[in-house]
Amino acid sequence: MMDAARRPHHDGSPLYVSHSAPALGDEVAVRLRVPEGYDAVGRVLVRSNPDHEPVWVEASRDGAADGWEWWTAHIVVTNPRHGYRFHLVLADGRVEILNQGGLTDVDALDGQDFALVAENPPPAWMDDTVLYQIFPDRFARSQAADARPAPHWAIPAAWDGPLDPVHPGRGRQFYGGDLDGAAEKLDHLSDLGVTALYHTPIFPAESNHRYDASRFDAVDPLVGGDDAYLRLIEASHARGIRIIGDLTTNHSGIAHDWFRAALGHPEAPESAFYYFHDEANETYETWLDADTLPKFDWSSAELRRRFIEGPDSVVAQWLRAPYGIDGWRIDVANMTGRLGRVDLNAEVRQTLRRTMIDVNPDTLLLAESTNDAASDLQGDAWHGGMTYPAFTRGVWAWLADPRRIPHYGFHGELSNDMWFFGLPTGMPRYSARQFVEQFQRFTSQIPWRVQRGTMSALDTHDTARFATYASPGAVPVALGLSMTLPGIPVVYAGDEFGLEGVDGEMSRTPMPWDRMAEPEIAARIALYRELIALRRTHPALSTGGLRWLHVDDAGVVFVRESAAESVLVVATRGGVDARVEAPLIVGAAAAKRLYGDAALDVDADGAVRVRAEGTSFAAFALPGVTAPPISAASPALEEIDPEAFVQLGAPSE
Amino acid sequence: MMDAARRPHHDGSPLYVSHSAPALGDEVAVRLRVPEGYDAVGRVLVRSNPDHEPVWVEASRDGAADGWEWWTAHIVVTNPRHGYRFHLVLADGRVEILNQGGLTDVDALDGQDFALVAENPPPAWMDDTVLYQIFPDRFARSQAADARPAPHWAIPAAWDGPLDPVHPGRGRQFYGGDLDGAAEKLDHLSDLGVTALYHTPIFPAESNHRYDASRFDAVDPLVGGDDAYLRLIEASHARGIRIIGDLTTNHSGIAHDWFRAALGHPEAPESAFYYFHDEANETYETWLDADTLPKFDWSSAELRRRFIEGPDSVVAQWLRAPYGIDGWRIDVANMTGRLGRVDLNAEVRQTLRRTMIDVNPDTLLLAESTNDAASDLQGDAWHGGMTYPAFTRGVWAWLADPRRIPHYGFHGELSNDMWFFGLPTGMPRYSARQFVEQFQRFTSQIPWRVQRGTMSALDTHDTARFATYASPGAVPVALGLSMTLPGIPVVYAGDEFGLEGVDGEMSRTPMPWDRMAEPEIAARIALYRELIALRRTHPALSTGGLRWLHVDDAGVVFVRESAAESVLVVATRGGVDARVEAPLIVGAAAAKRLYGDAALDVDADGAVRVRAEGTSFAAFALPGVTAPPISAASPALEEIDPEAFVQLGAPSE
Repeated sequence: MMDAARRPHHDGSPLYVSHSAPALGDEVAVRLRVPEGYDAVGRVLVRSNPDHEPVWVEASRDGAADGWEWWTAHIVVTNPRHGYRFHLVLADGRVEILNQGGLTDVDALDGQDFALVAENPPPAWMDDTVLYQIFPDRFARSQAADARPAPHWAIPAAWDGPLDPVHPGRGRQFYGGDLDGAAEKLDHLSDLGVTALYHTPIFPAESNHRYDASRFDAVDPLVGGDDAYLRLIEASHARGIRIIGDLTTNHSGIAHDWFRAALGHPEAPESAFYYFHDEANETYETWLDADTLPKFDWSSAELRRRFIEGPDSVVAQWLRAPYGIDGWRIDVANMTGRLGRVDLNAEVRQTLRRTMIDVNPDTLLLAESTNDAASDLQGDAWHGGMTYPAFTRGVWAWLADPRRIPHYGFHGELSNDMWFFGLPTGMPRYSARQFVEQFQRFTSQIPWRVQRGTMSALDTHDTARFATYASPGAVPVALGLSMTLPGIPVVYAGDEFGLEGVDGEMSRTPMPWDRMAEPEIAARIALYRELIALRRTHPALSTGGLRWLHVDDAGVVFVRESAAESVLVVATRGGVDARVEAPLIVGAAAAKRLYGDAALDVDADGAVRVRAEGTSFAAFALPGVTAPPISAASPALEEIDPEAFVQLGAPSE
Repeated sequence: MMDAARRPHHDGSPLYVSHSAPALGDEVAVRLRVPEGYDAVGRVLVRSNPDHEPVWVEASRDGAADGWEWWTAHIVVTNPRHGYRFHLVLADGRVEILNQGGLTDVDALDGQDFALVAENPPPAWMDDTVLYQIFPDRFARSQAADARPAPHWAIPAAWDGPLDPVHPGRGRQFYGGDLDGAAEKLDHLSDLGVTALYHTPIFPAESNHRYDASRFDAVDPLVGGDDAYLRLIEASHARGIRIIGDLTTNHSGIAHDWFRAALGHPEAPESAFYYFHDEANETYETWLDADTLPKFDWSSAELRRRFIEGPDSVVAQWLRAPYGIDGWRIDVANMTGRLGRVDLNAEVRQTLRRTMIDVNPDTLLLAESTNDAASDLQGDAWHGGMTYPAFTRGVWAWLADPRRIPHYGFHGELSNDMWFFGLPTGMPRYSARQFVEQFQRFTSQIPWRVQRGTMSALDTHDTARFATYASPGAVPVALGLSMTLPGIPVVYAGDEFGLEGVDGEMSRTPMPWDRMAEPEIAARIALYRELIALRRTHPALSTGGLRWLHVDDAGVVFVRESAAESVLVVATRGGVDARVEAPLIVGAAAAKRLYGDAALDVDADGAVRVRAEGTSFAAFALPGVTAPPISAASPALEEIDPEAFVQLGAPSE
């Protein structure tokens, strides 16, 4: 799985793919780049797999530039997810195959093919996005909040009072953050440089997290109601900050109007919205045995109509004027519509997205799917995922220190009595190599475009805060990786203050706005500002290709490449001293330091030496990548005719 | 991907899984086996992923036997495909994960999890099956055939006349084999020891292969009509030989009644059965641009009703009395119901199988899907596949010799102007290591039960014959592997005569029945008889577990294991000299040679030395595997409660 540097390369970025948002039937040029010094390549074929039956086209050699040979083939996009791969015939007759699973000398799996996604393009602004996530009860509180009595379910807490992670405090502690409070803090967001505000739910509920909605068609008066939401949206939009809402499609709360209408009333239309286990509608299916969270039954057409389908649905209501929010993050998207024998997930997500497109196609749809999300992240609906294995778990395992965990476990060595992002076996301790292997493995089945839309969170409202467990010096490294690897960077509110939190509940800390001027907090904010600016001022970090140049146990060197500019990134825990041979880094003599203290030198033989000490992060700007033009000799589409060959085995007839 | 021998092991066989055909809601015990000398294992957790959300249970240590520790966990089958994996917490705190992708120290992909399949069990006889495939026009000809005039489309050929692989001979050469001819040859099948006869299509058509059916509800009079089919079925059943038919669900011929009714008649009910491109129903979608093969549009309910759904459908008709065939092989199953944006494949295959279950659940359903079939082979409908990458391509690449191919290619070294089982880059030349890597890779995403039902063909009517290209001495090795690896062995009629064929057309050779007594042919038949008998008399070769004990460039040693008996297999091209340390082979001192000349010796330290020379195949019987009973201390189901842990990241709330 591990890609070494001196290898043929392709990825979904514009250097290699002519359109990232094709329609069905469009022809797309896909290009392969082969370094000098690699085994001579005699021929390159590209395999597509339309309707699950291979079709082959021949690639043409375009010429060379800067020590790389380029090849191009033209393929016609046939399926909504159109997989393709390169077969390289080497001069000695051996064949190597390149797909997202890596370079291999045996057959490659279809599920790891590169993939174009036809239709459902993400909004043009997706790639510029740096998300800022808030938990409304804890983000900011306006004066208006003082006049609102706490609701019946709540345990009021003072803004600077301690969090209580134990039931009933857990879930019921009420700090009274509101949307006008959030609007007052937009200066801070602008100052950080984030481009979108993602807020967890704001619909009425009976908990501080509001994932147990009691309705979806009105904003909770406790956060200011519909008017406050409109004020926040307008103020955000005026600054160019987009708003992403949060919808719970797997379940509602038991206080939801629909559930109240259905509970004990089998004759109610809403009876079909849930899975009742008895004829009297008294017992029901829930989310993970939480009695307060009845699970939706998406076989109900009426539920679809009210919630996700068409212009009068909940999904549409908040995208339409006057609100006009810019997208949705869908809670527990992985379980939505799935129960035992039933799997309506694809129907639900596609219907939901169709509604969004009808109201405003320039919107973003993200799916929470905290484990391996590949089966759902093929681009048909979700533009990306809030998912942990590819990036979040790997960064923690490499750059956090399990010895900082409050409890020691098994044999006193590594802690095991913790639950690490879905793994009850505790936090593993990865080398940089393992970090890269995991990143490659979990992105190998996801189309490049969907990976670009997938959240690279260090932490969220559901996790401990990274800073709590970070190895000494590792915060800039982890944050730097989130800003420089493909995916949407996310700042969970308070991370930029250096807040800590030992678990998902304790990370829901009210923001200590009055402490912003404290030197340590100001320095952390400055770090965030600087690394967000790095991301935003170098588009190659959003949309450029990704090549791993050096990976060892202690560190990684990779480059994000585009025609205009490339950015070389160094990240290490423990120091790295890498020699990257020519021509793998192009234009290193012109490198410009963007961040950090690493050294980048060109040796006499043209090799590039990259050195960094301790635990550190660095980035350098490099000239963009020059590719020869697509050869005029390259036929529009040269499909290989099986009839011209001796066929040992062919499609049946 | 490569499994070494001294590793924890699990697979879907009865040693490790308490039921292979559970129902939803059933509890199943899954067991892990860890060799002595492996890093001490402190704890074993089993992860299921019901509705795409992980659930964990703790495994109990049952005790040790013969140098192996055994662990058991109990899981509840929640989804029709219920994935699971083992997380091993080692004594030093490191975690390793075992799923079908192998043993890994970073997170594992869901798609490679071990998987139980609920519902749709295969027929009980599946595991005993050795298929014999015939191409009716070429298998055997009764006297009655002499009285039948050749049809209008045919170019009559004498039984011993040469094949013509060029159009129009290709597809139209007509040898006049028939079903009464086949029935006359059942002695030969019984003598070989095969248990099922799979015949390519016998419905009326306008070609010798009949994949262009003109109806599905009557047998072609040219092969004897319905009555001859009934005679063949009855005679076969009387000998305990089952019959598997062949249905073309992707397309019909242009002479099909349904297509004739629809062509030029947009108002006909059959108009909806095909994809017409114009309003006058004059142009239409085809299979791979073959004008004679119009593609079915499975969105038509009436097509489903006539063809695959319910007791009056074609699918049901031939399963019912008086015919009572035992299963279907579905042609071009991979493309069926798929076209561009449309993908009805799962609906079609599930509907088809439901019809079969309603008529007779004790039937087998196999899907032709010649490339990576994993996405469709999850057990919901197809019991297995006729697929090439896992076994067929790998065996050829390892054990056939591309230098025997008529044309030389690129640089005169390996041939590239050939089409190798779907690969236009020619036949690769694999080491044994690559053979195993490919087998593991392409079976890693297929549930064990479905792999057991997947055809291990050396060749078929669509491929060259293996014997034509076999490396010297490699036929027994390839055949031996087909009989000893998990999957259904297949004899393509004529292989047992040593027939050759340079491609798929030339392998459709009429059977030279009058040459059976020739010594070379008799010897080849004896080889087949012996290796089929090996398979049939040692059930571990059908249903036993699979552990790779030794893999190097030149050879492999593996063992198929069960409680009653195990079989150790040696296969090599070029010789193997392997030392397998204790306790990896249990009971080697009692080994009994079953086939071949390999040597198996036990060294003083208990290690087993396996030696074989040249290109050879061997098998030894070993005592069965002893496992300690499932620990009484093992709780029925000990689900791990996330609340008991510090949660760095957990399901959202």
